[in-house]
Amino acid sequence: MPPRPRPRARKRPARARSLDSLRRALASLRARGERVAFVPTMGALHEGHLSLVRLARRSAPRVVVSIFVNPLQFAPGEDFRRYPRPLARDRALLAAEGVDLIWEPRVEDVYPKGDRTRVYVEGLSDVLEGSSRPGHYTGVCTVVARLLNAVQPDLLWLGQKDAQQALILERMCADLLLPVEVRRGPTLREEDGLAMSSRNSYLSHAERQQAVALSQGLAAAWILLREGERSAQRLAAAIRREWDGYPLVREDYIAIVDPASLEPLQRVRGHALVAVAAHVGPARLIDNFPWRAR
Amino acid sequence: MPPRPRPRARKRPARARSLDSLRRALASLRARGERVAFVPTMGALHEGHLSLVRLARRSAPRVVVSIFVNPLQFAPGEDFRRYPRPLARDRALLAAEGVDLIWEPRVEDVYPKGDRTRVYVEGLSDVLEGSSRPGHYTGVCTVVARLLNAVQPDLLWLGQKDAQQALILERMCADLLLPVEVRRGPTLREEDGLAMSSRNSYLSHAERQQAVALSQGLAAAWILLREGERSAQRLAAAIRREWDGYPLVREDYIAIVDPASLEPLQRVRGHALVAVAAHVGPARLIDNFPWRAR
Repeated sequence: MPPRPRPRARKRPARARSLDSLRRALASLRARGERVAFVPTMGALHEGHLSLVRLARRSAPRVVVSIFVNPLQFAPGEDFRRYPRPLARDRALLAAEGVDLIWEPRVEDVYPKGDRTRVYVEGLSDVLEGSSRPGHYTGVCTVVARLLNAVQPDLLWLGQKDAQQALILERMCADLLLPVEVRRGPTLREEDGLAMSSRNSYLSHAERQQAVALSQGLAAAWILLREGERSAQRLAAAIRREWDGYPLVREDYIAIVDPASLEPLQRVRGHALVAVAAHVGPARLIDNFPWRAR
Repeated sequence: MPPRPRPRARKRPARARSLDSLRRALASLRARGERVAFVPTMGALHEGHLSLVRLARRSAPRVVVSIFVNPLQFAPGEDFRRYPRPLARDRALLAAEGVDLIWEPRVEDVYPKGDRTRVYVEGLSDVLEGSSRPGHYTGVCTVVARLLNAVQPDLLWLGQKDAQQALILERMCADLLLPVEVRRGPTLREEDGLAMSSRNSYLSHAERQQAVALSQGLAAAWILLREGERSAQRLAAAIRREWDGYPLVREDYIAIVDPASLEPLQRVRGHALVAVAAHVGPARLIDNFPWRAR
């Protein structure tokens, strides 16, 4: 079920569209030198986003949220056009969370006329999601660099659900000497374990029931790791076995990788990232868990 | 002749090396909210750099200069190792100009451990200098994005001598929504017309005398343009004819291009950039002039 805005007595968030109006709103937010936490989103907000907003609120006195469906991170044939855009509902949800400023740029506010500049993180961007979605992370880095330059936040909040994205953006911020602290919030899940995602709305009833395969597979791998299994091949096989019971779920990848380099592991010796992607009907879903060695 | 520091009664510039020390120094510079102008350099300063510093001083109350020979913009086999690094002299020259802060980062201050992030400007980076020096402008954009994020200046001063670099960095700043105003200072020349460059120091006496070919060739093209010549082919031929008298000068390129897109022109109809590059002994020299239609 989509979350409903909870009634709270709060000031309505300021709203900005153009870069100029954003900068004016930020100057007034920062008038007393307060720190700003930033949550970039593509809208279609769910509890996962809202949990990031709550973490952001606890981390800084001012919270800015952007809503921007970034065309550059969608490949031709992907779901840019049909990506959900329930703007009025998103605004109400953010107002209920006490967000200070919502930035809703148009494409031309983020990509000026004649735009030719791209940002990318070598190596990390070509594997897993990057391998299935060529150019995706160049789109992500290019837009987030711009959003950060526009908002200039003290803290940037990202979700663990998109673990590779978070890793790449942490790398980008450190490498580009951006004066921002990057933090991750945990993945939020539906009652049956399905990771929350704006793309879950693409699923039919039958597909929605089978989408639980992703988290079920990860749970199977997690149990094996707890029991001492260290072979990446056997962990992947366990996930695949789990998925065999869900005919609507079509594997894209099952990966057990080093969480810093994203290089495939033969055996899990220390920390690891277990990440999966699958097509379920019209949706391409991802999920993961970080395994932390004791 | 290299310029000598002129005696002036000024406060010595602050100096920073690490990012932390830079940020502390900047915070103290900005304590009264004064605007900051920034001149990034690779050191080996000449009057061209100093003229930018003077323009910067007139543009803002605070001036920051960086000295960093950026390894990423040199290809293997280029002159990274032998590039001149007269640091004590550079510091004295900047002190005499009343610079407020000199940032002298080490490589690891600009390229953190594990660095993988690159910035590039599509199209503009592959022609002229970019064609002769593959990867050069990715190196330039990647370092300048970092320097700008570290210094966060209000104004950035660049030299017209490196016209393509200035164009690409103007594009990058606009595209990445960097809150900085980019300005260009004119090319400074020796008495015989040779554009000032740190690489002129590579020239032997005989090579130095023939290096005048670049500005002589440009002057010939300029005179023809003034007389109404509009054929790019004939303008290039005039430059080449001029160069024929200088056997130590080996053409790299002679280009008459659109000053915004850098695309080659058949005929000069409006604005144009006339740009040349040549090898003179161990040095690769460049020069240009912007032609502005009435």
